[in-house]
Amino acid sequence: MRIGIMTSGGDCPGLNAVIRGIVLKGITVHGLEFVGFRDGWRGVVEGDFMELPRHQVRGISKQGGTILGTSRTNPYDGPNGGPENIQRTLDKLGVDAVIVIGGEGTLAGAHRLTEAGLKIVGVPKTIDNDLEATDYTFGFDTAVQIATEAIDRLRTTGESHHRCMIAEVMGRNVGWIALHAGMASGAHAILIPEQRVTMDQVSEWVLHAQKRGRAPLVVVAEGWVPDGELGPHAERGLDRFGRPRLGGIGERLAPELEARTGIETRATTLGHIQRGGVPSGYDRVLATRLGMAVVDSVVEERWGTMVALQGTDIAHVGFESALNNLKTVPQHRYDEARVLFG
Amino acid sequence: MRIGIMTSGGDCPGLNAVIRGIVLKGITVHGLEFVGFRDGWRGVVEGDFMELPRHQVRGISKQGGTILGTSRTNPYDGPNGGPENIQRTLDKLGVDAVIVIGGEGTLAGAHRLTEAGLKIVGVPKTIDNDLEATDYTFGFDTAVQIATEAIDRLRTTGESHHRCMIAEVMGRNVGWIALHAGMASGAHAILIPEQRVTMDQVSEWVLHAQKRGRAPLVVVAEGWVPDGELGPHAERGLDRFGRPRLGGIGERLAPELEARTGIETRATTLGHIQRGGVPSGYDRVLATRLGMAVVDSVVEERWGTMVALQGTDIAHVGFESALNNLKTVPQHRYDEARVLFG
Amino acid sequence: MRIGIMTSGGDCPGLNAVIRGIVLKGITVHGLEFVGFRDGWRGVVEGDFMELPRHQVRGISKQGGTILGTSRTNPYDGPNGGPENIQRTLDKLGVDAVIVIGGEGTLAGAHRLTEAGLKIVGVPKTIDNDLEATDYTFGFDTAVQIATEAIDRLRTTGESHHRCMIAEVMGRNVGWIALHAGMASGAHAILIPEQRVTMDQVSEWVLHAQKRGRAPLVVVAEGWVPDGELGPHAERGLDRFGRPRLGGIGERLAPELEARTGIETRATTLGHIQRGGVPSGYDRVLATRLGMAVVDSVVEERWGTMVALQGTDIAHVGFESALNNLKTVPQHRYDEARVLFG
Amino acid sequence: MRIGIMTSGGDCPGLNAVIRGIVLKGITVHGLEFVGFRDGWRGVVEGDFMELPRHQVRGISKQGGTILGTSRTNPYDGPNGGPENIQRTLDKLGVDAVIVIGGEGTLAGAHRLTEAGLKIVGVPKTIDNDLEATDYTFGFDTAVQIATEAIDRLRTTGESHHRCMIAEVMGRNVGWIALHAGMASGAHAILIPEQRVTMDQVSEWVLHAQKRGRAPLVVVAEGWVPDGELGPHAERGLDRFGRPRLGGIGERLAPELEARTGIETRATTLGHIQRGGVPSGYDRVLATRLGMAVVDSVVEERWGTMVALQGTDIAHVGFESALNNLKTVPQHRYDEARVLFG
Repeated sequence: MRIGIMTSGGDCPGLNAVIRGIVLKGITVHGLEFVGFRDGWRGVVEGDFMELPRHQVRGISKQGGTILGTSRTNPYDGPNGGPENIQRTLDKLGVDAVIVIGGEGTLAGAHRLTEAGLKIVGVPKTIDNDLEATDYTFGFDTAVQIATEAIDRLRTTGESHHRCMIAEVMGRNVGWIALHAGMASGAHAILIPEQRVTMDQVSEWVLHAQKRGRAPLVVVAEGWVPDGELGPHAERGLDRFGRPRLGGIGERLAPELEARTGIETRATTLGHIQRGGVPSGYDRVLATRLGMAVVDSVVEERWGTMVALQGTDIAHVGFESALNNLKTVPQHRYDEARVLFG
Repeated sequence: MRIGIMTSGGDCPGLNAVIRGIVLKGITVHGLEFVGFRDGWRGVVEGDFMELPRHQVRGISKQGGTILGTSRTNPYDGPNGGPENIQRTLDKLGVDAVIVIGGEGTLAGAHRLTEAGLKIVGVPKTIDNDLEATDYTFGFDTAVQIATEAIDRLRTTGESHHRCMIAEVMGRNVGWIALHAGMASGAHAILIPEQRVTMDQVSEWVLHAQKRGRAPLVVVAEGWVPDGELGPHAERGLDRFGRPRLGGIGERLAPELEARTGIETRATTLGHIQRGGVPSGYDRVLATRLGMAVVDSVVEERWGTMVALQGTDIAHVGFESALNNLKTVPQHRYDEARVLFG
Repeated sequence: MRIGIMTSGGDCPGLNAVIRGIVLKGITVHGLEFVGFRDGWRGVVEGDFMELPRHQVRGISKQGGTILGTSRTNPYDGPNGGPENIQRTLDKLGVDAVIVIGGEGTLAGAHRLTEAGLKIVGVPKTIDNDLEATDYTFGFDTAVQIATEAIDRLRTTGESHHRCMIAEVMGRNVGWIALHAGMASGAHAILIPEQRVTMDQVSEWVLHAQKRGRAPLVVVAEGWVPDGELGPHAERGLDRFGRPRLGGIGERLAPELEARTGIETRATTLGHIQRGGVPSGYDRVLATRLGMAVVDSVVEERWGTMVALQGTDIAHVGFESALNNLKTVPQHRYDEARVLFG
Repeated sequence: MRIGIMTSGGDCPGLNAVIRGIVLKGITVHGLEFVGFRDGWRGVVEGDFMELPRHQVRGISKQGGTILGTSRTNPYDGPNGGPENIQRTLDKLGVDAVIVIGGEGTLAGAHRLTEAGLKIVGVPKTIDNDLEATDYTFGFDTAVQIATEAIDRLRTTGESHHRCMIAEVMGRNVGWIALHAGMASGAHAILIPEQRVTMDQVSEWVLHAQKRGRAPLVVVAEGWVPDGELGPHAERGLDRFGRPRLGGIGERLAPELEARTGIETRATTLGHIQRGGVPSGYDRVLATRLGMAVVDSVVEERWGTMVALQGTDIAHVGFESALNNLKTVPQHRYDEARVLFG
C-alpha cells in the first residue's frame, strides 16, 4: 500500500514528529510506502508530491514547521479540485489512501471527501487546543511554554518600572493558551473570548494587584473583546511617527488601561514565535504517538476517522466529532484562574 | 481554620506552584489560614513552622525546589513521632489539618496517621510519574523536557564523532522519563527497568542504527539491569587516574557496548539537573490546579484522600490507591517506542 | 564609608548582577556599607532608599530587572533636584558617594553633578550596545540571544508557509542587536538605522532569497527608516476590525514588501521580551565584573569616571567619554553581514 | 581556486557557523570553490571529501557539531600521512589550499605541514578557551551558558534539601568554564587547575556558606587536583550495587566533603551536554566572523596563520602563537571570583 501524507493550515510544533511517527511505524511494522503531498491540499489537488523513504524523516521530530509545506488551499476549489478529480489524481499516482494532518477546516474538507468515497484518515491539528474530541492537541504545550517564558521576562520589566504589562497571546476563538500561560506566570488578569468582562472589571483587577505591591500582569487572548466598550483611549496610542497605533487587542488595551488606572502600561504581542520552532518534549511524544496510531487507522481501514488523545490513550473518533465542536474554556477552569487574580 | 502544609522527599519542579495554589485559593475563597512546616515530617514532628500569608507565595510558581524545605524524615521515628505526639503538636500550634505533598513513602506515612485519626489530605509527588492513581504527576514534564534538550545536545556530538552516545536518565523502578525523553529525541534504544533486554539485543540495535548511517543513541533509565550479564568490559572503564570507573549503569554500559560493537561509546549521566530549576508551563498549571483542588479536600473534610489528574480533570482518591500501585510502562507503550529503534 | 547605588532608565538583564558585584566586593574587601536608592534619580532626589546588607543581594544575579526599581526622573527637576539639594540629602543620609548604573542620559546627569562637586562614579547601561567607550555593555548579549532564539522559531513558520518573515528587534539609533541576531539566525536582509537602504534593495534581497528556494527572513531594527519612501502599501495593513494596522516599522514594512514582491509577508515585533528576564551567563559575568570594578573607582576616589570593557579587561574612563559618542555599526561589520544576504 | 575545509578534534558549538561563514564569503565575494574533508585529518590524508556548494551550508549555523565530521587522526601517521603524501593528494583532488579548524594539536600539525610548504590557514577551536592568542574562542560561550543553566537548576535542589551541591564542568588544564559558570551562578567555591587549594580551604568555604544560611555550591573543573591529599573518604562513594563509585573529581570530592563538613553532598558531572547542540547567538556571530576572516587569509595567501579575536576585531596571527601558549586563568580573575565565596 502506498499512502499519501499532507499537512494543512497554520504550522504547529510537532507536525514533523507526526510525519516521522507515521513513516517509521508504517514502514517498519506494516511495510507501507509513503509519499508526502506538498503544501496541503494544493499538493493533493495538483499531484505535487515527494517520496518519503525512511531517511527523509531522520531527525525531524525536533524541527518546527513541516517538511511537506502547508497552505490554506480548499480541496474543492479549482479545475482539479473535488472528489472525482482528486481520486483520479490519487489513482494516477498509485496512492491508496491519504492521511491529512490539519485543523477544523481541513478535517471538514476531508469529511466531505470521505463521504464521497475517498479513503482518508486524519490527525487533528490546532495550536489553540480548541477541539472537543481530544484532550490536548500537539503544539499547544509548546505554545504555552513559549508564552510562559516570554511572560516571565515581561514580568521583571514590569516590576522594575512599576508598570502594568500586557501580553497578547494566540487564541482567536478560545482562551486555552491565555489560560494556561496566565496561570503558569501568575497573571493578575486573564482575558479570553469565552468570558465577557468589562473594562471596569479589568481596571479593578489591575488596581488590586498594584495595591498589593505587584506590577500588574495582564494576559489577553487575541480574540478577546470587552463586555461593552473598550473605551475612548484605546485608539489614542501614538507610534513614534505621531500616528495612531492600532494594533491588536493588546496594543489597544494598553492606552485605555493606562488612562483608567493611571498606571503606565505596555503591551507586547507575542505573535508568530508561539507557533514555530523546536517542539517541547511533551508535544514530540504526543505527536509521535498520534502519527503511529493513525497508521493503525489506515491498516484497519477506518476511513473518515481521526486519532485523539483521551486521558493517556489514543482513540479513534469520526471526523464529524471534530466539526462544530469548539472546545471552549469551561467556567470552572476560569474560576480556578481567577483565584490568582487577587 | 488553620492548615499546615509540608513537602517531603526528593524535590520536584512544581512544589512551589502547589503551595501557591493552596495558599491563594485557601485564603481568597475560603478564608483559611496557612502555616508551612519546615523540611517535611521533621517540621511537623518538631513543630518547626513558618507563617504562610499571601505575600510569602508571591512569584514562587516559577521557582524550582520548595520554599518549605524537604527531608526524608519518618513521622513515626524519634521521641516526638507517632500519631499522638504529632496530634499534640498540631493542637499546641492550633493547626487543624495538614496537607502533605510527597511521594509514596510520605503518603504511606500519611495513610497510617489518618487511620489513627489525624486530619490529613495529600498531593502526590513523584518525578518518576510512577503512581497508578494519577495520569501524570507534576515535575515529570519538566524532567522529560530537560532530558530531551540535553539528549538533543548529545546527539550532535555523537554524529560529529561517529560515536554511540548513552544518556542515563532518572528512573529507579520505572522507565517513564527514559521512554518519553527517548521517544522525543529519537533514541535507537531505550532501556527501562520494566523490560528485560539482553546485551546482545542492545548491541544489535546499536549496530543497526550505525548501519543506517546514524550515530547510535541509547537512553537508559538508572534502574535498568540487563537480562543476563552486562559483560566483562563493564568494569573496565578507567578514569584519568587509571582507576576503574564504576559509575551508574550508563558509565558501565559504555565500555561494554564499545567492546561488543566496536563503536566508540560515551555515557553522560544527567543526574540532578533533571529535578531542579524552573518548572515547565505544563507543570506549573498542573501543580497549581492540584494545589487548588486539595483545598477543596480540606474544606470538604476528605481526610485520607489525595488529588489526582484523570484526563483533564482533578479527582479525589484515597491514600490507599497510592500504595503498592507502581505505575509501570505498559508493553504497548514500549512497543511504540521500539518502532523508532529501527 | 557609606555608598548609595541606583539604577536608572530602561531595565536591562544584568542590573542585579552589577548590584551584587558592588555589594559583595565592597563589604568583603573594603568594609564599605551600601544603601540602594529606589527608582533611579527619584530615590536620590527624594532620599528614598533601602539598606543593602549582604543578604539582600543573595541569589539576585540571575534575576532580570532591578531590585532597586528604576525611572526616567531627571536629577535636576523638581524642588529637591540639582546638585546642592542632592548633596544636602546625601549628607543627611550619611551617604558619602553614589554609584549610578544607567545609560547616556543618566551618565550625562551624573557628569554635570560631578562637575558641581558630587562624588559619583558610574556603570554604563545600554541594551543597544551603543556606547563608544566600552566594547560591550551588559544586557546586550541576552537581548541578542532572546532575539536569535525567537527568529529561529519564526524561520520554521516562514519555511512551512513559503512566507517572508520580518522580525522587528530593538535599536532606535543603532543596529547592533539587529546585526548580531540577524547574522546568528542567517537573515537575508538586515535593516539598521546606520544604513540607508531603499525599498527596491530590500525587495531585491527578499526575491533573491526566494529564488534560491529560501523563505526570506528580514531582521529590522525599530529605528530603521528606508532611503526614500516606504511606499503606498505600508499603511494598508488592516487589523481584524478592518482598521488600518499602524504599528512599528515591522508591521508597516510587511504589507509594502508583500505588495512589491508578491510573497506573503508577516511581521513580528519582539518588543519587551528582549529586555527582561534571566540574563545570559555572559552578561552575568560581565555585570559582576563591572560591579566589582566600580567599587575600586569608589575606593580610589575616581569621581566622574565609569567602568568599561576593553578587550577582556575592565578600564576606568571619564563620564565625558560616554557623552556624544554613539557607537554605530561600522561599514565593515555591515559588509560582513551582507555576505549572508546572498 | 578550490579550497578544502576540515574540522578536527573535539566538537564545539559554532563549527558549522565557521563553515557557513567560509563558504558564503568565499563563493559570494571571491568566487572560490570549496570541498569539505571528512573527519579531520583522516579525510585529508585519505582524500575523502564532499563538495561544498552554497546550498550545503544552508541553515547550518544553528546546528551543533560539524557537518564534516571530526576525528583525532594525526596527519603524520599512516602510509599516506606526512607533507609529501598530503600535497600529492591535494594536487590530485585539485585542492589549492586547506583551512583547518581545530585545537592546539591540530594547529601544531598544520604548523609543521606549513613549514614543509603546504598552503594552510587556520581557525582556532577550543571549548576550554585556553588559547593565549585570542580573547575568546567560539563554543566557550555556549558551554558557559549550558553550565550556568544547569547549575541554576542544581541550586534549587541544594536549597530544598540543605545539601552541598557540586557541579563538575569541563576544563582539563584550565578553569575558564568553571570560573565563568561559577561567577554567573554564584558559587561558594570554584576549583580550577590553576589554583592550588587544600581540602581544608574547600571545607572552610563550604561551611562558611552554610553558616550564612546558604546551600553551599561548589563548581569544580574536571582537571582540578587538591593541594595535598583529597582525603580518605574520596574513594568511599558506593554505587547502588555496593561497589566503590570512582568517577571524576566531582564524584570523589562529594563523599570527602561530606565527611569533613557533615553536610550531605551530591555531585553532578555535566559532561558532554556542555559541548553539543545549538550554539548561543554570541558563538554564532563570532564563528561566522572567524570563518569570513579566514577567507581573507586564503585570498591574501597568509599561509601559516590563523584568525583570532582581539577586542572586537578579528586579527591574523601565526600558527606558532597558538603553540605552547596555554591561556590560564590569571590570579586577578580568580581573586574576583573569590569575592563571591563569602
